[in-house]
Amino acid sequence: MEHSDFGKRFAGRIGIGELMDDLGNALVADPAPLMLGGGNPSHVPPVQARFRKRMEAILAQPGEFERVIGNYDTPQGAKLFIESLVELFRSEFGWKVGPENFALTNGSQNSFFYLFNLFAGRFEETRRKQILLPLAPEYIGYSEVGLEKDFFRANRPEIARLEDNLFKYQVDFDSLRINEETGAVCFSRPTNPTGNVVTDEEVSRLRELANRQGVPLIIDNAYGTPFPNIIYEEVQPIWDEDVIVCMSLSKLGLPGLRTGIVIAREETIRIVSRMTSVFSLAPGGMGPALALDMVKTGEITRISREVVRPFYENKAQRAVAWFKREMEGLPFAIHKPEGALFLWLWFEGLPISTQELYERLKQKGVLVVSGHYFFPGLEEDWPHKDECIRVTYAQDDELVEKGLSLIASEIREIYSNS
Amino acid sequence: MEHSDFGKRFAGRIGIGELMDDLGNALVADPAPLMLGGGNPSHVPPVQARFRKRMEAILAQPGEFERVIGNYDTPQGAKLFIESLVELFRSEFGWKVGPENFALTNGSQNSFFYLFNLFAGRFEETRRKQILLPLAPEYIGYSEVGLEKDFFRANRPEIARLEDNLFKYQVDFDSLRINEETGAVCFSRPTNPTGNVVTDEEVSRLRELANRQGVPLIIDNAYGTPFPNIIYEEVQPIWDEDVIVCMSLSKLGLPGLRTGIVIAREETIRIVSRMTSVFSLAPGGMGPALALDMVKTGEITRISREVVRPFYENKAQRAVAWFKREMEGLPFAIHKPEGALFLWLWFEGLPISTQELYERLKQKGVLVVSGHYFFPGLEEDWPHKDECIRVTYAQDDELVEKGLSLIASEIREIYSNS
Repeated sequence: MEHSDFGKRFAGRIGIGELMDDLGNALVADPAPLMLGGGNPSHVPPVQARFRKRMEAILAQPGEFERVIGNYDTPQGAKLFIESLVELFRSEFGWKVGPENFALTNGSQNSFFYLFNLFAGRFEETRRKQILLPLAPEYIGYSEVGLEKDFFRANRPEIARLEDNLFKYQVDFDSLRINEETGAVCFSRPTNPTGNVVTDEEVSRLRELANRQGVPLIIDNAYGTPFPNIIYEEVQPIWDEDVIVCMSLSKLGLPGLRTGIVIAREETIRIVSRMTSVFSLAPGGMGPALALDMVKTGEITRISREVVRPFYENKAQRAVAWFKREMEGLPFAIHKPEGALFLWLWFEGLPISTQELYERLKQKGVLVVSGHYFFPGLEEDWPHKDECIRVTYAQDDELVEKGLSLIASEIREIYSNS
Repeated sequence: MEHSDFGKRFAGRIGIGELMDDLGNALVADPAPLMLGGGNPSHVPPVQARFRKRMEAILAQPGEFERVIGNYDTPQGAKLFIESLVELFRSEFGWKVGPENFALTNGSQNSFFYLFNLFAGRFEETRRKQILLPLAPEYIGYSEVGLEKDFFRANRPEIARLEDNLFKYQVDFDSLRINEETGAVCFSRPTNPTGNVVTDEEVSRLRELANRQGVPLIIDNAYGTPFPNIIYEEVQPIWDEDVIVCMSLSKLGLPGLRTGIVIAREETIRIVSRMTSVFSLAPGGMGPALALDMVKTGEITRISREVVRPFYENKAQRAVAWFKREMEGLPFAIHKPEGALFLWLWFEGLPISTQELYERLKQKGVLVVSGHYFFPGLEEDWPHKDECIRVTYAQDDELVEKGLSLIASEIREIYSNS
């Protein structure tokens, strides 16, 4: 059977595909590998208990369970849930939003497919625009969502070396070019894979540059505030009609229910809703139903601040301490963990590629993600792209500690043989 | 903000978008309109009770609820559910399938986006292929899923006039052309919007033609057998490596959980799974979890045959009887209802367009779908395209009877004024 040009793209190796396969297979494998590769969030007990209680309440309210499973929502998504979100963001941040500024999708990945292809690609058949990623490395999942070739342009970061084997990426504004070939500017905050939090000052400058070019600033807030709030720096969340904020219920604990949230100007929301109708009829209804009362009461903010954030922040600190201990005497650096679920480990001058390191670690029973996947749109030769790996610290402590220890011993072996 | 060529397509009127908006808004409107427009399935009490019981069982099994909501599945979809489907289709129909022949998606609409664009569109930049719909009218939701223009070619049907104001569409094989511009052949069975069931003989001939051209035959089985089995004719379900069967849990009663099922050769399944990873990471996990034990025990087949089919067949018969009674003395025809949730009403020589009829009925509080939306790929002028409407009989009897009565009185008024 012959495949279209579009279809052929999916026949080869795709980073996010392999990552998701690793992740899913690890869950059912026996013996299970130490899964430090995927983006599955932790099962945070108080949050899970809250969702369980809510499901019991849905079952107890006559007809409610049947309504949730048995009816299509509109393509824009569950009305009551959207109204509660409006209230939350108005009261939490003072954003001037209404229901016309919200659309639900089948997960954030889905949102990016819609938004990126709305603002980049072909224009009047002849012109092209790209999505500008101002701070590489960026999220692996962006890589293939563009319907056209050369869809992304990424900007190489400045690297600030900090104390204690830490470093932090910063936007290199000197080399950043926003021009008529830029369709939109996008960054994740906190950043997947690095755990970086783009500073308020950087955000202001990027916003100004995007505004000047008349293109939207898209902020991937999947790990950000007010939920799940896996962010360890105090930041100022922003939104206006020229900004698009993408959120998700996944990292709060509902990845199995595929719920993304887009906050944007009315025109954009209308188009995103139309896209949902065409590509999947409607967003799923169970995620919104399970989170509804938590949003309504504002409890989602409280639980994110008081439970979720400290849960992950403590895990991050422990993971950093374990890794430093295990790597004693070896060259390495860790991106300062400011949020999200990951440690981004840099092995400067590593004698093998990180893809090779991934393979070797897989043999030893530890799954990580090779860093080279996280540079969509950065075509230039840069050894750094092959010197980093992403590991998650969302798994159980024992597993994370063991996994980090195996990584360290593999690195030790590599250096001792070279 | 400037939108891409792709994005611009979603700024205008889109049939499936308006239909889904109507559907969702009707559910929360006060007073609620008589919603005969949408494809929401009935809430069939014994089926709903079964899903409720299953959710209670999931909650009772320690950690199970948390696993379903809190973990990503692989892009291919929940492993255990797929294994149960394999067993079901092997034992039910004797199909030689394995887990490598199944992929889950976020609903059937999602499946068609993937499959249609895999087999049609641009080839080596220069050639184009289309999806051939051998029997128009066809499902409204196909219309916009193609990433390229002129994506569909539909074949005008033969109309067999039957007794009792009934008629049936038949494939016009004389005018059917399958050639090097055909990427795949697709039909829904039972057909949405008509309730037609393409005969076994027609299927055989289409399969032979597709095989000869080396392109897949895609069968949209969203209403078909073995589940939900909303099909009132005895038919022979087929599958082999050259056929792709698309199924769904929606019409069984889970539209809110967005679960589609693709059954195809391994190569196709691998690509569909990769597409899922890129466009939405993974399919939702709750639909598969709720249906798992019903598939495992084969109860899904029994409940579909003994409960779901008679439920809808009786509703279809009552709806036909009511409409005939109300239309006494007026010209009309109904497509022989052989399955799915719809009556397809034909008002031959109607003095106004069906879009106008839709507007007038909306004013009176009845929502239907204008038939002109159901002819994607049939560009030729044909008055019949503007003479039909789709009405669902899945709603409560009282509502259906009242809606049909209002439609009849509107038609009566139109004829008395012309």
